[in-house]
Amino acid sequence: MNTVGDILTFLNTLAPPSMKMEWDNVGLLVGSRAQGVTKILVALDPFEAVCQEAAQWGAELIVTHHPLIFRPVKSITDDNEVGRCIQTLCAKGISAICAHTNLDCAPEGVNRRLAELLELSDIQVINPLGTDDQGRDWGLLRMGQVQEQPLEGFLGHVKEALGCEGLRYVSGGKPVCKVAVGGGACGSELMDAVKAGCDTFVTSDIKYNQFWDAQALGINLIDAGHFHTENPVVTLLAEQIATAFPEVQVMISEKHTDCLKYY
Amino acid sequence: MNTVGDILTFLNTLAPPSMKMEWDNVGLLVGSRAQGVTKILVALDPFEAVCQEAAQWGAELIVTHHPLIFRPVKSITDDNEVGRCIQTLCAKGISAICAHTNLDCAPEGVNRRLAELLELSDIQVINPLGTDDQGRDWGLLRMGQVQEQPLEGFLGHVKEALGCEGLRYVSGGKPVCKVAVGGGACGSELMDAVKAGCDTFVTSDIKYNQFWDAQALGINLIDAGHFHTENPVVTLLAEQIATAFPEVQVMISEKHTDCLKYY
Amino acid sequence: MNTVGDILTFLNTLAPPSMKMEWDNVGLLVGSRAQGVTKILVALDPFEAVCQEAAQWGAELIVTHHPLIFRPVKSITDDNEVGRCIQTLCAKGISAICAHTNLDCAPEGVNRRLAELLELSDIQVINPLGTDDQGRDWGLLRMGQVQEQPLEGFLGHVKEALGCEGLRYVSGGKPVCKVAVGGGACGSELMDAVKAGCDTFVTSDIKYNQFWDAQALGINLIDAGHFHTENPVVTLLAEQIATAFPEVQVMISEKHTDCLKYY
Amino acid sequence: MNTVGDILTFLNTLAPPSMKMEWDNVGLLVGSRAQGVTKILVALDPFEAVCQEAAQWGAELIVTHHPLIFRPVKSITDDNEVGRCIQTLCAKGISAICAHTNLDCAPEGVNRRLAELLELSDIQVINPLGTDDQGRDWGLLRMGQVQEQPLEGFLGHVKEALGCEGLRYVSGGKPVCKVAVGGGACGSELMDAVKAGCDTFVTSDIKYNQFWDAQALGINLIDAGHFHTENPVVTLLAEQIATAFPEVQVMISEKHTDCLKYY
Amino acid sequence: MNTVGDILTFLNTLAPPSMKMEWDNVGLLVGSRAQGVTKILVALDPFEAVCQEAAQWGAELIVTHHPLIFRPVKSITDDNEVGRCIQTLCAKGISAICAHTNLDCAPEGVNRRLAELLELSDIQVINPLGTDDQGRDWGLLRMGQVQEQPLEGFLGHVKEALGCEGLRYVSGGKPVCKVAVGGGACGSELMDAVKAGCDTFVTSDIKYNQFWDAQALGINLIDAGHFHTENPVVTLLAEQIATAFPEVQVMISEKHTDCLKYY
Amino acid sequence: MNTVGDILTFLNTLAPPSMKMEWDNVGLLVGSRAQGVTKILVALDPFEAVCQEAAQWGAELIVTHHPLIFRPVKSITDDNEVGRCIQTLCAKGISAICAHTNLDCAPEGVNRRLAELLELSDIQVINPLGTDDQGRDWGLLRMGQVQEQPLEGFLGHVKEALGCEGLRYVSGGKPVCKVAVGGGACGSELMDAVKAGCDTFVTSDIKYNQFWDAQALGINLIDAGHFHTENPVVTLLAEQIATAFPEVQVMISEKHTDCLKYY
Repeated sequence: MNTVGDILTFLNTLAPPSMKMEWDNVGLLVGSRAQGVTKILVALDPFEAVCQEAAQWGAELIVTHHPLIFRPVKSITDDNEVGRCIQTLCAKGISAICAHTNLDCAPEGVNRRLAELLELSDIQVINPLGTDDQGRDWGLLRMGQVQEQPLEGFLGHVKEALGCEGLRYVSGGKPVCKVAVGGGACGSELMDAVKAGCDTFVTSDIKYNQFWDAQALGINLIDAGHFHTENPVVTLLAEQIATAFPEVQVMISEKHTDCLKYY
Repeated sequence: MNTVGDILTFLNTLAPPSMKMEWDNVGLLVGSRAQGVTKILVALDPFEAVCQEAAQWGAELIVTHHPLIFRPVKSITDDNEVGRCIQTLCAKGISAICAHTNLDCAPEGVNRRLAELLELSDIQVINPLGTDDQGRDWGLLRMGQVQEQPLEGFLGHVKEALGCEGLRYVSGGKPVCKVAVGGGACGSELMDAVKAGCDTFVTSDIKYNQFWDAQALGINLIDAGHFHTENPVVTLLAEQIATAFPEVQVMISEKHTDCLKYY
Repeated sequence: MNTVGDILTFLNTLAPPSMKMEWDNVGLLVGSRAQGVTKILVALDPFEAVCQEAAQWGAELIVTHHPLIFRPVKSITDDNEVGRCIQTLCAKGISAICAHTNLDCAPEGVNRRLAELLELSDIQVINPLGTDDQGRDWGLLRMGQVQEQPLEGFLGHVKEALGCEGLRYVSGGKPVCKVAVGGGACGSELMDAVKAGCDTFVTSDIKYNQFWDAQALGINLIDAGHFHTENPVVTLLAEQIATAFPEVQVMISEKHTDCLKYY
Repeated sequence: MNTVGDILTFLNTLAPPSMKMEWDNVGLLVGSRAQGVTKILVALDPFEAVCQEAAQWGAELIVTHHPLIFRPVKSITDDNEVGRCIQTLCAKGISAICAHTNLDCAPEGVNRRLAELLELSDIQVINPLGTDDQGRDWGLLRMGQVQEQPLEGFLGHVKEALGCEGLRYVSGGKPVCKVAVGGGACGSELMDAVKAGCDTFVTSDIKYNQFWDAQALGINLIDAGHFHTENPVVTLLAEQIATAFPEVQVMISEKHTDCLKYY
Repeated sequence: MNTVGDILTFLNTLAPPSMKMEWDNVGLLVGSRAQGVTKILVALDPFEAVCQEAAQWGAELIVTHHPLIFRPVKSITDDNEVGRCIQTLCAKGISAICAHTNLDCAPEGVNRRLAELLELSDIQVINPLGTDDQGRDWGLLRMGQVQEQPLEGFLGHVKEALGCEGLRYVSGGKPVCKVAVGGGACGSELMDAVKAGCDTFVTSDIKYNQFWDAQALGINLIDAGHFHTENPVVTLLAEQIATAFPEVQVMISEKHTDCLKYY
Repeated sequence: MNTVGDILTFLNTLAPPSMKMEWDNVGLLVGSRAQGVTKILVALDPFEAVCQEAAQWGAELIVTHHPLIFRPVKSITDDNEVGRCIQTLCAKGISAICAHTNLDCAPEGVNRRLAELLELSDIQVINPLGTDDQGRDWGLLRMGQVQEQPLEGFLGHVKEALGCEGLRYVSGGKPVCKVAVGGGACGSELMDAVKAGCDTFVTSDIKYNQFWDAQALGINLIDAGHFHTENPVVTLLAEQIATAFPEVQVMISEKHTDCLKYY
């Protein structure tokens, strides 16, 4: 039978831990490498509902993008959500693996998938941080081309491609042609997108001054939501694991959708 | 003739510098206390367009909420917006005063005004940081009551009262009754609103994990936009200055509106 | 039924968390305040054998002196003992409470008990850190009198009273009369014992230079072992809890003895 | 027409910013690269009198050795000299460039010029920090030979060559033969001069203990004044700029002399 | 016979260690409290020549203003002056006491003596740091009045009163009336003198920018030399000790004069 | 005549200072390189009794393993042992050289000697930190083989070989075959011994939790005492110096034995 250790080894090939940011916490965060695995639940976040879903379905492993433990913990009690999640997982013998910023940066990770979903052509890594052993660049942001079009049209394309309920944006006063993408909160990388010559940047969790900076710099800045820019990688993870481990059942969480609404 | 120093003294009474956060930079940031004043332009931000508007109108002073210099500067060149603004102001002899977190916290400041605009009753300071010399509490957040109503209805009220183009929110699963407000980016004060017993929190610049935290904590969290939650104080500033200095012309910037759009 | 929360409240009275050292981690470290309790296992350390003993006996709570989590943890896996202990406890629904340096310092804690066991008279706190609400001094070390006797004789008394297999010591060249005690590793408090006028100090985990310092300072220094100087408090904890909660079964760990041998 | 950017590029060749100390602030500190330039005022310091002199003469640029902004500034008001200078410059559209420790260290900078003025032969860099693209050493101090002579005679030579009103010195008990020079406050580099085998060190702003250190180390230490050891570079800067930009008028400040007097 | 401990106790009354700056090192730096004392050598600095003078004269104690050990030492070898001094002192059984910034600040210390020597009237402490048990203010600087006079005249007075070979100064453009004094390197306290309303400040080790700051602030700044502004306290120390311990011989060092010359 | 400098040069070849830990203080700590040497006293520690022994014997140099000055000192008085030792040495003109962690790590240093004394075969450096100019590995710990034997038997061997009065140990549940050694307090290197595949580790100053860690990790851990694991190097030092400098008398301290007793 496949083990948690086998899945971890596979994920470490897809998204090597050496590609993570220094402050991040990735890999096997709860459980045991020796644990046998027949069912894996994949989700963007290891929220309580996801842990319970895994328990009810009988999964021995959850694989998520965001880490269950981010700041090191001094206690594991039911006073907070992280404690309740760890208790549920340990009680049911469920392990938890996370691939976070290493998956953001990996050649075939979050941002590659986001670029593909937006149908960018000639996808490249912006400011590569290195090359992997297959000679592929890796790094945080991606950029690529679209047929030149007005911002209005591209907004519709993003909303449909990512399934967003709404978008927030500022116009940089230019048509859309060269697009940078960064799933999750990449607003502080705005200058990287500008320096790479992009006219448009799709990311999320944009703050007030970042919208104004974009306007001053003349770049279209689109906040498509943290969930909708990162969740596509969940499908990728599920597909990759299912392909590599055909005898294991892999399911994407049905409980975990975005909580954020627009009015 | 009234001077910049007179206006500064007046604003320091309205929003004493001692009420500012430790990291903030408030007061007279450009110009001269001795400068005579006949025209004052008031705006939320000291952006380039605002500085030019002041120059064209012939103002000797701009009063803003956000500080023109936040991180200390090592040069003043036209390579960046702060440098261009300082050059414009110095070239035209215009002074600049800012009242930022001291105005957020002041008894009659940003958050008091926001609470009033949302028609909260029985407005109180959450976690007062002190009392002023009139015995009034001061501190960052405010809270108050509304007639119990479904979240949906309150969303409409917020949108209309603040003139927002759109809202982002998460439901905490409760009707709206006791509301906390914090203009600008107060997402990290979420727990203060919860501990104060509020069922709803109106602020801006909310990040992904803060929406989820709100859902887990069972509190309605509404992101009404940084501009729309803070800009009401501009009217208050203009009115107060005009009342105190009847011989001075006070104008609210016509150039400065929100850059953020919804789609 | 009594709950973990009830026991925690009781222990916090016996050894208030405010008496702990700044770097320490005490209180409810694993589990749930709401957990019902019928059986409590008490031990010096929350080692794996102790957790298993609790599981086998059916305890819902373990109470220990040393904290299960000392350095905050970034993962909970079976790769290390702390992870295995947490997994065992969560799997069985067992909570864990620790009272560490707060119990060392409490008026009726580790060091008071150690002084009593050594039959010191006129027991006092050395360098009290405060007084509790009953007006009793609290602090780390205790001191008291014995009938003046040669060091050799006192060594035999310590060995027998604490049940040590062996002792390490250095002679300060004086008979034993005024004795300081500090359970566990208190070697760095040597000067406090000297300044308090003691001729003899009983503690553990003494390092080479501390033995030499004692000789130079003319104080008898006795290393009676970390386990044997602290374990007496386990009996005290068990008795106190049993008295306060007569309907709960309280057992002292039978698995946890000292691992250290002399040759 | 030449621009400020052209002059900056030229000065960056003469004294590359990469040669500056880590803590220093050099380059274009006020103004605009695009500014056209017909008149340049050169001075050791950008004091208020110098800025006014530039304004009266109609200069579009001042070039100084000491930086106008050293510690980053949080406000630009007429309460202090730096603020008044910036206001004057911005009001008149005058840019300000500074070449400080990069000019000290440059192959043809402050200390080279100082060594030449003292007629040292065989001038070398003490402890070179690198070589420039022409293969020339660069670094802080210079050393060279003079005809062996008594200290008394060399003092007269220094006073005359640099135009000092007075000198302060300590005798190291040796005749003058091998001389180290460091314009400005280089007293903390005393050991470098000693290790390089020099018998005499000419610099400025020497403190009490440095005079005693020199005596104990047996090296003649001469404080020839900060102004008089650095001001010679002003002539060099003026000459170099005038040669490179013949169509620009270059003037050395007539207002800026040393303020320090001897009695 | 009097002991080093007796002298230390006396000096600690004159200049309590609690009045020292946080970074300073004062008190008994070499030797033994139990050492009997018949001869004491007093000097501004514990230089090698002073230690040898003490040894030749047969002193058992040197008392100096500047500390023999300032930065803690990792070795005591003849490779440097501090090591050689300690070796000389230990070889001859000579103790060393220093009273540094505590003596600067003491009510009857360095700066009081300096003010008296300059014949200031109505001497007061600038910015007192506290009051001693006799109710006297203590702190770093002193100020007092002189008959209003031109700067030129006051310079002559200072030179004569302190026995300086030369002075360095900048004129603040005002006659001398209210004078601040700070023996040794007090240039960084310039603003304190200005805020206290003084028109003239006498201190030493002034740096280039401090002379310019004084000119800009309109205060006369006189550098009368570190030795000549502090050495007067040596006489005071010798007198005080001789008076308190009539049976002890007290001598002021004959070897220690200023090394600094003017040309 | 040989000098202290000659001995220092020789010892620096045996144990190069570059092999020391960053926090350590080694080399000539007291005295003079120029001092002539006819008698050298060698000891593990530079305690007061050792300094007096050197003085009485007429030695001009002591060579020790532990440094006389570890934390830099701010005074040299008879209030503490370090001060008294320095005074004794300086009074008698005795120099002091120490070779501490550089001697621990040297190819022929403390731990090599310890391994030889325990008759380990095939001695290797665990985790070498480098190779010296003879191509030999150097680093902290050593490991080697013994004939497989029960722990009990090996304990007897250690006790006899090192002359220990007693041992403290924990069993890892394995026979002894591959042994790691680290003289002095090397308990924090336990994982290095485990990772190198050793079943037994001989060191000293083991703390409570380290004994438990060893048991959990399944490695026999023997605390043979700081003195007894390091003192063998004293003989080595004496032999090496005597061989290299046949005209110098070298003596091992007769006063310095272990102060620690077992009961």
